[in-house]
Amino acid sequence: MKISMYDAAVTTGIRMMTNLASVLEKAAQDAAARKIDPEVFVGARLAPDMFPLSRQVQIASDSVKLGAARLAGVTAPSWEDDEKTLPELVERARKTARYLETLRPEQFDGAEARAVRWKSRSAEREMQGLPYLLHQMLPNVHFHCTTTYDILRHNGVELGKMDYLGRDPPA
Amino acid sequence: MKISMYDAAVTTGIRMMTNLASVLEKAAQDAAARKIDPEVFVGARLAPDMFPLSRQVQIASDSVKLGAARLAGVTAPSWEDDEKTLPELVERARKTARYLETLRPEQFDGAEARAVRWKSRSAEREMQGLPYLLHQMLPNVHFHCTTTYDILRHNGVELGKMDYLGRDPPA
Repeated sequence: MKISMYDAAVTTGIRMMTNLASVLEKAAQDAAARKIDPEVFVGARLAPDMFPLSRQVQIASDSVKLGAARLAGVTAPSWEDDEKTLPELVERARKTARYLETLRPEQFDGAEARAVRWKSRSAEREMQGLPYLLHQMLPNVHFHCTTTYDILRHNGVELGKMDYLGRDPPA
Repeated sequence: MKISMYDAAVTTGIRMMTNLASVLEKAAQDAAARKIDPEVFVGARLAPDMFPLSRQVQIASDSVKLGAARLAGVTAPSWEDDEKTLPELVERARKTARYLETLRPEQFDGAEARAVRWKSRSAEREMQGLPYLLHQMLPNVHFHCTTTYDILRHNGVELGKMDYLGRDPPA
């Protein structure tokens, strides 16, 4: 009946960042094929008061990186949010996956009961590890990865849900 | 280091369906305030070859209902996909949450190693319970709930990420 916090946070995070990188690579190929300036995709939004694609990718990356680090009780590396091209955003997703690969299962011992504290835009927040994982970290990761996908689909990029879920069988 | 399959599948599913119902209720209020025919939202899409909002909600509901039932080793109820209004879609989300409330933690004993079999549109599929939960069920639920949210945001409904994540502290 039991699964590990490591599986749920790190294995999922690596898979989502790998799939996100592939989705962004497909967008770059699509831009080249349709002779569209790829920066149009980088700055595209679904509504004027929503973040553009670049920021969606950066927040997805931060949700994975900071979420896993907080659960492991370590400090995540700080990265500038300075990506301006699709290849730079692909690399952001890939380096997030590489960071997660440095975390070890034993760092997540007891993480379900660990107090996770962080500062949101509006307040100091604190949650226990398990609800933080299930109701904060994972929903945030999927929210921003799906919105990235939705922005690209809305702009005519040929993608399917299998690009989001990952075509290779999960490990 | 351990969390339960029940927590990850059922607690998450109930929370996502509850938040989805609230998002759809806000859409109905917005339609009334802006004097928009609410069926415009029900049929809205982000791309001509993507599903409309109604189908996104139905698939989100099925992902939760069927995912949890498969992991519990029981047969989920079958529902017609005949919702045509926002109140009907709200009720679809709420009855999905009510179904999950009938499942019991002990039904998920050993679910992480259980063989989950289902028929997708194109093939017979089989996955072990844990990767099914982490890489199939939960990503699917979030994918369709986020796309529902994105469709509404794209159509000018005033929503924020806290509507998606849930404003009440998680249990």
